[in-house]
Amino acid sequence: MPTLHDVIAARPHVYRYLKPTPLYHYASLSELLGAEVYVKHENHLPVGAFKVRGGLNFAAHLSAAERRGGLFTASTGNHGQSIAFAAKMHGIKATIAVPEVANPGKVAAMRGLGATVIHHGADFDTAREWIKAQAQAQGGRFVSPTEDLLIAGVGTYALEIMEDLPDVEVIIVPVGAGSGACGVSIVAKTINPNIEVIACQSAQAPAMQRSWLAGELVTAEMTTFAEGVATRVPFENTQQIMRQYLDDFVLVDDADILKAIRLMIEHTHNMAESAGAIPLGAALQIKTHLAGRKVVLVMSGGNLALDQLKLSIS
Amino acid sequence: MPTLHDVIAARPHVYRYLKPTPLYHYASLSELLGAEVYVKHENHLPVGAFKVRGGLNFAAHLSAAERRGGLFTASTGNHGQSIAFAAKMHGIKATIAVPEVANPGKVAAMRGLGATVIHHGADFDTAREWIKAQAQAQGGRFVSPTEDLLIAGVGTYALEIMEDLPDVEVIIVPVGAGSGACGVSIVAKTINPNIEVIACQSAQAPAMQRSWLAGELVTAEMTTFAEGVATRVPFENTQQIMRQYLDDFVLVDDADILKAIRLMIEHTHNMAESAGAIPLGAALQIKTHLAGRKVVLVMSGGNLALDQLKLSIS
Repeated sequence: MPTLHDVIAARPHVYRYLKPTPLYHYASLSELLGAEVYVKHENHLPVGAFKVRGGLNFAAHLSAAERRGGLFTASTGNHGQSIAFAAKMHGIKATIAVPEVANPGKVAAMRGLGATVIHHGADFDTAREWIKAQAQAQGGRFVSPTEDLLIAGVGTYALEIMEDLPDVEVIIVPVGAGSGACGVSIVAKTINPNIEVIACQSAQAPAMQRSWLAGELVTAEMTTFAEGVATRVPFENTQQIMRQYLDDFVLVDDADILKAIRLMIEHTHNMAESAGAIPLGAALQIKTHLAGRKVVLVMSGGNLALDQLKLSIS
Repeated sequence: MPTLHDVIAARPHVYRYLKPTPLYHYASLSELLGAEVYVKHENHLPVGAFKVRGGLNFAAHLSAAERRGGLFTASTGNHGQSIAFAAKMHGIKATIAVPEVANPGKVAAMRGLGATVIHHGADFDTAREWIKAQAQAQGGRFVSPTEDLLIAGVGTYALEIMEDLPDVEVIIVPVGAGSGACGVSIVAKTINPNIEVIACQSAQAPAMQRSWLAGELVTAEMTTFAEGVATRVPFENTQQIMRQYLDDFVLVDDADILKAIRLMIEHTHNMAESAGAIPLGAALQIKTHLAGRKVVLVMSGGNLALDQLKLSIS
């Protein structure tokens, strides 16, 4: 399990290629929620999402043989962009499998970064199993979306939150495979166990939440439009970390995620992708619990597809 | 006229309250324009626009008497947010006149920052004359949107461009009152006179462009929806600077500004406000001229009203 020490060690590898993201206070969001509300703008990063931090830390630790073999991974978009970006910065080849109905903007961005993108299978989990076999056959390094080095890398944003708002009381973070929630948990709870870390996910993709509640891996139906959190098969290593640290895990209906995207546009003038708007949807559900407290909503990314944007503001 | 020295002197006042913004390369925008295209993300700043830099520099230089009297200004939105933000950071009172049809999101943001906002008059110029008289009557400091200290403050983003991309060849910047274009011109041309600085504006608000072409102040009809550049009466001091430095001044039809907003969402996943999308509209018009060169588009702000967003993607 990665530690605060691993997150601190990741910083030079991450900040070699990107700058810390802003944490902004929004008066009108604060009024809406009856709390002191801040947004952590991971949507401002290169490739538009927090995952890029993990990829950079991961690529910095490859052996010469791994660099030669190249990186292979599967992604609904942002993990793939992260690996593509890191591979480009480090001069390595990247091959990425995406589901057949992948977000076209994210696919174009991966290709723009020089990665080879292959559409395969109906969802993330199918694409992942296939590309894992490909990596083995071609002597490449398969990158799981929850590797320790990825978690340590993305944890750097949680350290930035702690530095910008040392007296933060609640952090609400979306969960796909869990690397973001784990990075936040490890950092926040190690520094101050009183900080509440609340995970959230689409109610139409509850596998990670059900597994966390059950204390064992549970596969669940996955029908969400929010591709950044479209997880059907849970991950054991991130579940272990979440079992140790998470205070709560809230599900938000897809219809409320769309509303949250619109509210984020109105109140912050930032376009969150579906996953990045879930924390606001969750906060609205647990408004009473948050009343008067210092709350950080993690806007994990901004790569919203145009059809989802249209749906959210129609 | 402010100089590079004034811009350098503004940096500590600006960076006391905000961080440099990113300059990102976009592969798909580059393909679209046939050039090496970067976007300067001034939409990532607090209050969502470049003007906040100017307000911070201005507020840092007030006398004790001026601080007591408070700041008075008029704004279509972003200049007002800048003054409201700076006033809040410096513990000063701010009173801001806005046109009767002001962008509601920007008005809410100014009030959220603690400013007194008064709706007055049909456009920016009417609101400005009125609040100027109010400032005099109440012993406050009227802030013109093109004061030297504002220009020097906003010029800090141009220095960031020069540091991140020293071999930039063309910078395209939108013009409302002209502080942004002047800040960019002063910095870029002083450091390297070969850098082309191209201004742009809505074809439905051409007063600044016509004045620049004519070499004297010309008032023009103003019907644009792009409130950030809705200037009817030109400003002499910024015209002087632009006459000395600008290489070209391109007009973009409102219909093409809407298209540029949509293209920015598709290619960068960033929501530009109307003014912030004009440089892309201008670049598309002068594509042949830009071919193969290193081009920076200044996304001056992101405070797009919801109805304009709907129009742009419908």
